[in-house]
Amino acid sequence: MRIDELPALIQAGGVTWLEVEGLGDEAVLRRIAELFRIHRLALADIVNVGQRPKAEAYPEFELVICRMACALGGDEFELEQVSFVVGRDFVVSFHEGERDVFDTVRERIRLGGFVRTMGADYLTYALVDVLIDGYYPIVEGLGDRLESLEERLIEKPTKALLSEIHRVRRELLTLVRVVHQQRDAVGAMMRADHPLVSDAVRVYLRDSLDHALQISDVLDTFREIALGLMEVYHSSVSHRTNEIIKVLTILSSIFIPLTFIVGVYGMNFEYMPELHWKHGYAVTWGLMLAVAGGLLVYFRRSGWIGERGEAAEPERDSAGR
Amino acid sequence: MRIDELPALIQAGGVTWLEVEGLGDEAVLRRIAELFRIHRLALADIVNVGQRPKAEAYPEFELVICRMACALGGDEFELEQVSFVVGRDFVVSFHEGERDVFDTVRERIRLGGFVRTMGADYLTYALVDVLIDGYYPIVEGLGDRLESLEERLIEKPTKALLSEIHRVRRELLTLVRVVHQQRDAVGAMMRADHPLVSDAVRVYLRDSLDHALQISDVLDTFREIALGLMEVYHSSVSHRTNEIIKVLTILSSIFIPLTFIVGVYGMNFEYMPELHWKHGYAVTWGLMLAVAGGLLVYFRRSGWIGERGEAAEPERDSAGR
Amino acid sequence: MRIDELPALIQAGGVTWLEVEGLGDEAVLRRIAELFRIHRLALADIVNVGQRPKAEAYPEFELVICRMACALGGDEFELEQVSFVVGRDFVVSFHEGERDVFDTVRERIRLGGFVRTMGADYLTYALVDVLIDGYYPIVEGLGDRLESLEERLIEKPTKALLSEIHRVRRELLTLVRVVHQQRDAVGAMMRADHPLVSDAVRVYLRDSLDHALQISDVLDTFREIALGLMEVYHSSVSHRTNEIIKVLTILSSIFIPLTFIVGVYGMNFEYMPELHWKHGYAVTWGLMLAVAGGLLVYFRRSGWIGERGEAAEPERDSAGR
Amino acid sequence: MRIDELPALIQAGGVTWLEVEGLGDEAVLRRIAELFRIHRLALADIVNVGQRPKAEAYPEFELVICRMACALGGDEFELEQVSFVVGRDFVVSFHEGERDVFDTVRERIRLGGFVRTMGADYLTYALVDVLIDGYYPIVEGLGDRLESLEERLIEKPTKALLSEIHRVRRELLTLVRVVHQQRDAVGAMMRADHPLVSDAVRVYLRDSLDHALQISDVLDTFREIALGLMEVYHSSVSHRTNEIIKVLTILSSIFIPLTFIVGVYGMNFEYMPELHWKHGYAVTWGLMLAVAGGLLVYFRRSGWIGERGEAAEPERDSAGR
Amino acid sequence: MRIDELPALIQAGGVTWLEVEGLGDEAVLRRIAELFRIHRLALADIVNVGQRPKAEAYPEFELVICRMACALGGDEFELEQVSFVVGRDFVVSFHEGERDVFDTVRERIRLGGFVRTMGADYLTYALVDVLIDGYYPIVEGLGDRLESLEERLIEKPTKALLSEIHRVRRELLTLVRVVHQQRDAVGAMMRADHPLVSDAVRVYLRDSLDHALQISDVLDTFREIALGLMEVYHSSVSHRTNEIIKVLTILSSIFIPLTFIVGVYGMNFEYMPELHWKHGYAVTWGLMLAVAGGLLVYFRRSGWIGERGEAAEPERDSAGR
Repeated sequence: MRIDELPALIQAGGVTWLEVEGLGDEAVLRRIAELFRIHRLALADIVNVGQRPKAEAYPEFELVICRMACALGGDEFELEQVSFVVGRDFVVSFHEGERDVFDTVRERIRLGGFVRTMGADYLTYALVDVLIDGYYPIVEGLGDRLESLEERLIEKPTKALLSEIHRVRRELLTLVRVVHQQRDAVGAMMRADHPLVSDAVRVYLRDSLDHALQISDVLDTFREIALGLMEVYHSSVSHRTNEIIKVLTILSSIFIPLTFIVGVYGMNFEYMPELHWKHGYAVTWGLMLAVAGGLLVYFRRSGWIGERGEAAEPERDSAGR
Repeated sequence: MRIDELPALIQAGGVTWLEVEGLGDEAVLRRIAELFRIHRLALADIVNVGQRPKAEAYPEFELVICRMACALGGDEFELEQVSFVVGRDFVVSFHEGERDVFDTVRERIRLGGFVRTMGADYLTYALVDVLIDGYYPIVEGLGDRLESLEERLIEKPTKALLSEIHRVRRELLTLVRVVHQQRDAVGAMMRADHPLVSDAVRVYLRDSLDHALQISDVLDTFREIALGLMEVYHSSVSHRTNEIIKVLTILSSIFIPLTFIVGVYGMNFEYMPELHWKHGYAVTWGLMLAVAGGLLVYFRRSGWIGERGEAAEPERDSAGR
Repeated sequence: MRIDELPALIQAGGVTWLEVEGLGDEAVLRRIAELFRIHRLALADIVNVGQRPKAEAYPEFELVICRMACALGGDEFELEQVSFVVGRDFVVSFHEGERDVFDTVRERIRLGGFVRTMGADYLTYALVDVLIDGYYPIVEGLGDRLESLEERLIEKPTKALLSEIHRVRRELLTLVRVVHQQRDAVGAMMRADHPLVSDAVRVYLRDSLDHALQISDVLDTFREIALGLMEVYHSSVSHRTNEIIKVLTILSSIFIPLTFIVGVYGMNFEYMPELHWKHGYAVTWGLMLAVAGGLLVYFRRSGWIGERGEAAEPERDSAGR
Repeated sequence: MRIDELPALIQAGGVTWLEVEGLGDEAVLRRIAELFRIHRLALADIVNVGQRPKAEAYPEFELVICRMACALGGDEFELEQVSFVVGRDFVVSFHEGERDVFDTVRERIRLGGFVRTMGADYLTYALVDVLIDGYYPIVEGLGDRLESLEERLIEKPTKALLSEIHRVRRELLTLVRVVHQQRDAVGAMMRADHPLVSDAVRVYLRDSLDHALQISDVLDTFREIALGLMEVYHSSVSHRTNEIIKVLTILSSIFIPLTFIVGVYGMNFEYMPELHWKHGYAVTWGLMLAVAGGLLVYFRRSGWIGERGEAAEPERDSAGR
Repeated sequence: MRIDELPALIQAGGVTWLEVEGLGDEAVLRRIAELFRIHRLALADIVNVGQRPKAEAYPEFELVICRMACALGGDEFELEQVSFVVGRDFVVSFHEGERDVFDTVRERIRLGGFVRTMGADYLTYALVDVLIDGYYPIVEGLGDRLESLEERLIEKPTKALLSEIHRVRRELLTLVRVVHQQRDAVGAMMRADHPLVSDAVRVYLRDSLDHALQISDVLDTFREIALGLMEVYHSSVSHRTNEIIKVLTILSSIFIPLTFIVGVYGMNFEYMPELHWKHGYAVTWGLMLAVAGGLLVYFRRSGWIGERGEAAEPERDSAGR
């Protein structure tokens, strides 16, 4: 479609929906802004992607800025800006990239569904709703990653897992912030006593708001879980260190007195009666065994030995779940 | 009952209460929605269980979504969605599962009690109230678990207990969130200046709100207690490690100088006068006893020995209570 | 007094104050509820003690639920529910137990003071004010305990003190929650544009509110102090562990090389020229003293020795005050 | 001045400012209360010092309670209560102690400045403003203490410094609370649509409010800095412990194998060929040097040795600034 | 320009913009205040730099106080106060220093752009907008520093990096506070129903507010990242300590029993049959190798050896990203 044909199309009455993909061609954008009388501040927000999601009323139209969550390969995702300029009888949507997620809406329009009989406000709702629903797979992906992290953490707490937890926490941080802003934007659209939004559509926007709330609830829970996983990691690591210290202590504590005893009879004094006793050597061994045995009994009574076997089993489900 | 007989029953006047158990049969649900003119967004919320508890006003009815807490065996519990569509003269309740908790209400209606003389709003209150009261046993169960955890933690802080505390904390997290939303839903029903809710019923809803507040208070206290238990666990574990380190230190510090002394007289120098003294051996023993005794006195003065016995007794009630 | 004589007494005009002690006799309670037209939800709240403090307006009366703080022996205290039903010309007070704290009010009425010339609202204020003032001794008791804990902690940080701090924190938690609710209840009474509360009495209620705020301020400070005491405990304990580790290190680090040296000359090689030197033994001692001295100088320069004496003095006031 | 002469003075028209110093003489206070019709609750607040700063409207006057910050010697300060009763044409100020800070205001009145032409509301502003400005030197003193603490902490983290930090934190806690309340009191005076406060004076009160906000901002920053200092202390202490552990490890790890080797050749077996080798002793020394050297190389490669020198320099500015 | 020529210039009609650079010349400032009828409290705020950013309405003008962020060399920045007095047809800007950032605005005026056709309110917006945009480079600089810190932290966690993180956190703290106040000031200008601000300009102010919100969002994220870096530092340091302890334990645990064994055969008893066996020495070596091997197998099975190599690789990306 050439930009010159636009005015003719708009005259056709009803609700016009213009999709602009890519924000590179300045001349086209300026022409569109002129045609729909888009305020230059609004246009600046549309072009300078990276804005906070928001809904702002201008005298002649409403500017709605959203973030679309796009799953990339792996666990990665991207947040692309999608902006809407909503007038009485037109909606102009601006996409940062060229990903197309509005197929379902277009299909519904083509099939002449409910959306066809409603105004620009309902169309906007339908488009925003698609974007919000797009967060669900991302959120589920994060949930899966947390679960897998938990399982691997139980098996063996490595530093790589810790840095993976850090990474998830940072992604959650970003996502929570955007979802909160998105939620507030939908809330602002719904509550504003704007002549552009009819009461019938308000009910639909409330539903979108509800979805945004649900997503933000889940993300909040995820943040608590991620925090819990970090605690599990740190307590596992310090448990291991304690184990190691315990082994050292027990070994040292048993051998240190014994080494002293053998040292005593390694001395070269001329007059050491024990050295000449017939059973001196055997008695010394007896003494050493007695000392070692006594210490073992003491350690067992203090609960320092024998605990390990007992603790080995519950280690299986120490994932803080 | 067949779905076709429904219209006839509704014509009978008074307040109609229709219970729908299970959400599987789409045709039936659609027929009911038609009959009671339930908005399709409301129907979507009812069918897609896992919604946040909420109360939403639609032009012709009020949609109330609740979560019912059902104790399973053991310490487990489930949160099932129960939805109400409340009109001027009807209440339709939708259960996710087939658990029936409304027996008491049905009994009261059959006995022709107070509930019979009131409208749909009072019936809704009675049903919601039953759901909220259903949280009490769950909350009590959690309280019992926390108490038992505390007792077992005092006896012996094992890793299994720590992961049990983590589990309780996570359950509390879920429960607190749902109870807060449930509370807000009841609050919304009460405060909305809705023609469907009469002033007389508002007083009853305030009572339900109060119960929800009480439950959420108790849960908040539980969260603090669970946090305190974790602190108790960690300080117990580090106390044990410190004990072990102390024993190692004392043993090492006493034997290290002694081992050095016996090493000295194990040397093979030709000219070592002490070796040829008559009482060299005895004097060496005396020296070693003096060193050991001096160190013991020093440790006792520094408060490192002898403290254990004293600390053993209060260990009994160190549960942070 | 018999319950049947009640109606006659009420007819006498003026303001009637009925005190109900103990909540066990259901018949009497029902009779009173009938007489004063107390809503059955209000009666349920009165009877089921353990409610949150609150002030609720009913069409014909105001229900005020308070918690009375009663010091038991030792450091213990109890929070008993006291409820008031306040009508245009009557106040009914319900006590959970049989403790009587309203003596002073009764005395003031008997003496024909200010309270006599005022209505039911002022009487309610006077009663609530007595209950709020009852928190002061409890709060002071907690302050004394914290101070004594601090002093004992400075002397010697034992595990018993830690668990005592935990106990105080939990009591503070309970108390803070109740005082906040009590404060909100008084605030609700004051702010409600209720025909039952005159403007003159509002000024008095504001004073009670101010007392509640003051108590809650002090409790907040106490919570911070208790948290600070825990920090002091933990840093004291870790300081002690560090001390012990330091002693072990210094002893070990000095004797380990010496023990090696004596080991060398304990070897039985045939050709070890040093063993046959005349001054071999003396030179070895000199070497060992040089090594030990060198290490001591190194440790002193690193600030690991000699610091203890200096640190001993300030330990006195390390209580975080 | 005798209390009897008061009424005559008041008749003189204009704005009367009465200063009451010391709150001990009950008869005088009661006489003043009568003369200015001060509500008995207000009088109680004035006499029972230790109230929260607040501004309360009474039907015929406004009660303003402030806290004056007085620097004592050293780093100490006191918070004294100063109360104002502000009527249409009078201001009565009550001082807890006998410190006089209103000299400047009196001087301005004597000089017949701006304050003379304004009403009681402006006079109150002028007095409150003096009190709020009195916080600045205290705040600056705290800032200096924090800075000096930081410097001393970098030099050497002693336990005395830690307890000093605790002390400063507790003072900040007290001060922040009072300043917040003071700020709210001024805010209440400013915002209340009170006939006693003219619009012209509101502008001045806004300025006082701004000062209070500034002080509370600075105090908040100080609290963060104090928290940061504690972190610096703890990480310094744990750094030192780690250093000590490292030295022990390196020494032990090097000598433990060597001591084993010399032990081997200290054994008294009849058939130990090495003992009879000509170069057995020299070879053993070679072996031991090789082991020690190998371990040193390993430790240096692991980054455990040599790091100390590098870390010594940045220690200078590790104050968390 | 001489101060006397000012009045003539103002008479010229349109909007007058007067820039005052440096706040040292009191006479000039007083003359300007007289000319534009600036309230003395406003003048005090302008002169006493270090005020919180704010927008205050005075009867005849609006006082707007901003903070300009100026990058100095290195990572340093300064926050300079810039104040605006905005009247119906004039704007007076006061700069603390002599930095000039309003070149772009002056250029736009000279070119006769949009700004020329608008009133004093739009001019103020244009000036404030320049100041807010001035925060972006500072924020970006901080972002770069955090990123470089992260990279260096992964390579080697030194104490110098920790203190650098502390420094960045403190700068973020300052910046966040100022940006929040700046944001509130713009919000106040926008929302105030001030006759000085037209609806057309409100749209522009909303845009400035949006920029301030964006900056404060980024700063909040930076604070979380800085906190995360500290966690990474601490867990790296404790990881190193654990490594060192592990090496000590393994070395000690292996050599302690061996040293005991060689000690045994260093004893000088007359009757020690093993010493006379032909293969006594060889058997002893065999025994010692068996013990050492057994311990190595045990440690490997416990996962204490061999883990290091595996952990070395993921250390690369443990930066919490």
